[in-house]
Amino acid sequence: MREIPKAVAERIIRNAGNKSVRVSDGAVVKMAEWLEKVGTEISKDAIDMAEHAGRKTVKETDIEWVTEHSFTMVKR
Amino acid sequence: MREIPKAVAERIIRNAGNKSVRVSDGAVVKMAEWLEKVGTEISKDAIDMAEHAGRKTVKETDIEWVTEHSFTMVKR
Repeated sequence: MREIPKAVAERIIRNAGNKSVRVSDGAVVKMAEWLEKVGTEISKDAIDMAEHAGRKTVKETDIEWVTEHSFTMVKR
Repeated sequence: MREIPKAVAERIIRNAGNKSVRVSDGAVVKMAEWLEKVGTEISKDAIDMAEHAGRKTVKETDIEWVTEHSFTMVKR
């Protein structure tokens, strides 16, 4: 774990708002951890898909398929 | 856009599998773009929540609330 640098997670949050937005360290850590967690879940499924297709290489279409059909973001 | 380095996205995919996994460049780019897209959506909601609460600072609980209640990952 801890692959996503805090500076990266902080910029993603800041870029989503205006210049006056302040971001706590806890929020930055939470965002980095969450992104890594869902990225890992998607990757597991994408690797399974590639293996199922008899490939050793994970392709763009594997990631695409998983994020669009298998493990998706839902706005409630 | 393009806040998440390709090396970071690639490690997230690799860490999810075993050593023999190969990852195409397209898969890495797709993962980086997708993570940034959902991270941005979550950030927008978290910023709205902080503002709604009369705060200028986005806190850990804002990110937590959005990822758990508002904008969540669903395994189909």
